Amino acid sequence: MARPLGPVRLKKASPVTLAIGAVFTILVLYFLIGSSAPDFSASRKASAASHPLSPPTSPFRKSTGGGKPKAPPVAHYNLNNVTITSDPLGNRENILLLTPMARFYQQYWDNLLKLSYPHELITLGFILPKTKEGNAATTELQKQIAKTQKSGPEKDRFKSIIILRQDFDPPLQSQDEAERHKIQNQKIRRAAMAKARNSLLFTTLGPATSWVLWLDADVIETPSDLIQDLAAHNKPVIAPNCFQRFYNTEKKAMDERPYDFNNWQDSPTAVELAKKMGPDDILLEGYADMATYRALMAYMHKTDGLRQETVPLDGVGGAALLVKADVHRDGAMFPPFSFYHLIETEGFAKMAKRLGWQPFGLPNYKVFFFFCLFLLGGRMLLLTGR
Amino acid sequence: MARPLGPVRLKKASPVTLAIGAVFTILVLYFLIGSSAPDFSASRKASAASHPLSPPTSPFRKSTGGGKPKAPPVAHYNLNNVTITSDPLGNRENILLLTPMARFYQQYWDNLLKLSYPHELITLGFILPKTKEGNAATTELQKQIAKTQKSGPEKDRFKSIIILRQDFDPPLQSQDEAERHKIQNQKIRRAAMAKARNSLLFTTLGPATSWVLWLDADVIETPSDLIQDLAAHNKPVIAPNCFQRFYNTEKKAMDERPYDFNNWQDSPTAVELAKKMGPDDILLEGYADMATYRALMAYMHKTDGLRQETVPLDGVGGAALLVKADVHRDGAMFPPFSFYHLIETEGFAKMAKRLGWQPFGLPNYKVFFFFCLFLLGGRMLLLTGR
Repeated sequence: MARPLGPVRLKKASPVTLAIGAVFTILVLYFLIGSSAPDFSASRKASAASHPLSPPTSPFRKSTGGGKPKAPPVAHYNLNNVTITSDPLGNRENILLLTPMARFYQQYWDNLLKLSYPHELITLGFILPKTKEGNAATTELQKQIAKTQKSGPEKDRFKSIIILRQDFDPPLQSQDEAERHKIQNQKIRRAAMAKARNSLLFTTLGPATSWVLWLDADVIETPSDLIQDLAAHNKPVIAPNCFQRFYNTEKKAMDERPYDFNNWQDSPTAVELAKKMGPDDILLEGYADMATYRALMAYMHKTDGLRQETVPLDGVGGAALLVKADVHRDGAMFPPFSFYHLIETEGFAKMAKRLGWQPFGLPNYKVFFFFCLFLLGGRMLLLTGR
Repeated sequence: MARPLGPVRLKKASPVTLAIGAVFTILVLYFLIGSSAPDFSASRKASAASHPLSPPTSPFRKSTGGGKPKAPPVAHYNLNNVTITSDPLGNRENILLLTPMARFYQQYWDNLLKLSYPHELITLGFILPKTKEGNAATTELQKQIAKTQKSGPEKDRFKSIIILRQDFDPPLQSQDEAERHKIQNQKIRRAAMAKARNSLLFTTLGPATSWVLWLDADVIETPSDLIQDLAAHNKPVIAPNCFQRFYNTEKKAMDERPYDFNNWQDSPTAVELAKKMGPDDILLEGYADMATYRALMAYMHKTDGLRQETVPLDGVGGAALLVKADVHRDGAMFPPFSFYHLIETEGFAKMAKRLGWQPFGLPNYKVFFFFCLFLLGGRMLLLTGR
């Protein structure tokens, strides 16, 4: 016969895990767009609940009348087939564009505005930490949102915008590059990032979402047809190649270099390394003292290569990543723990594969990160992406 | 230098994985409740976008006017602190009640209506397969929803209701008990169930959800204070004990028996069994030929035991399960693949633990399944739960 165990056996948890409190503060910025003045009230009324996108968490309106039952409320019923196709524009498919944001870059926002995909089909979702830096970024973001949604041209305005603020101790106070990249800090940092991505994803994905575009806050230059170009491949998960512009002191000219090492194909060496690891250990890419010999998409780029060339990937980064909503709906999330010795976006790729969805990459399709802060001849250089 | 791999390397995927198509059909049933007639239009207008629950996927309203920019649209801004506390009623916390449904039982619906938690704080979410049986259940469900939301007493009406229909070949055509429980079918069946749960969860969880209550469609009798009672323990994940009423031919009277074997505490035997398994193998509970010697909560029940007694659990079932929304937001989902040799709800418990959230169970707090179809002296008996 079974017996109840005595004391609670709490799993050994990382400081991050413990630090992330139960309190999840949410800031929702919502703009209803473009209703012409005379039609306004009617359009608002119609939009309240009759749309297939009507949310599971829509407002309940308590009756203001007396106790006796009212006339039957209006019932709305919609049958909606959500398609996920290689022609999202032709099929008017809804895009959920998700960005975890620690800092606000004006160029990021300007680039968003240039996206040629109809903005009325794009919902933006952001998550920012409740830190001093996160507060500043939120203020900047809100300012730009207000400008775009209220006084910007109608074509610029997005369908809706949601901002989440997450209450947890940031894993590392410094966002300084050297500090950020220290190998021993990576696991903690990426576990926290994975949880932020999951919170954002679980909270914003709706019934009518066809595609989720992950775009990091420091990706500030993409082709304007990014969404159409990526979706055209009709792959479950697809990543462009992320580069960075910089001033090449040897060439005395602007140059570019590969910058995202999370898009890769597995290697026998990495598989062997993983076998020897403890269950909670993770493999990280881009460190000399943990040479994996994986085939990195960063280095697959060919100047004369076809932009539409695809390669299968085993690991992906989250800097720019288009995902069919069904991949997430099946359960693919960003593991904040070691999953086959992978974490966050790389763990996500493994999980998608476990669910039967193969990720792909576009080695010759480039997007650009904001800036690099690096030492060159002893001088610290801050370079913008363009 | 890295080289692109040749052909696409698709992971070996189960038939279920392959069968689940990209098409995800969604049926949204939405009822706006209780606006009194004279106040109707104003209340609807106000509810369109000003509420903190305003959705990420709310409708975009295209201007019907000319090409020139309109007056700035109304901007709504809300700051909302979503609490998750042991007093959800006092704090007006939103509950998302999720039910995967293959068959509709009237008693399930009647039990829902009896829940004492304010219905205006409860959103219902359902997922049904697109099969003949699923269609029939959907019809029945819609009939009851229409009755409750339109002509039922106002206190009965739920905040909102969402119904998802999922297009995939059901893993097993028969829902017959003997067939369902065949050990070799369990893995396929539970992987499909896990994907259904994930689809439902990812699609319906909103920014303002505090708690998610999983309640299976065949759970037809619970205490009316179920939500308050479970939440009062303030545990990240908590499961009541699931029983089944039946006619005891020996006692010649109605009796009850434990019926959910997925709530358990791990055993050294199970841990050893798992170690010897292949990476994709799963441990299943309740089969004589795979004796795990786990401590099952089903057998921890004491007739004179305290209803509020809690025990820590390593595996949970989904029949009735209250989960803090933050556990899901951190990324805890229902693995449709072997996760530490566990799958679906049991895999979810392991994942919650990996994220630092300890599941608990209430051995003496009972809820009841609908019926059992079993052989007794060669006769097949169909017994209702009450």
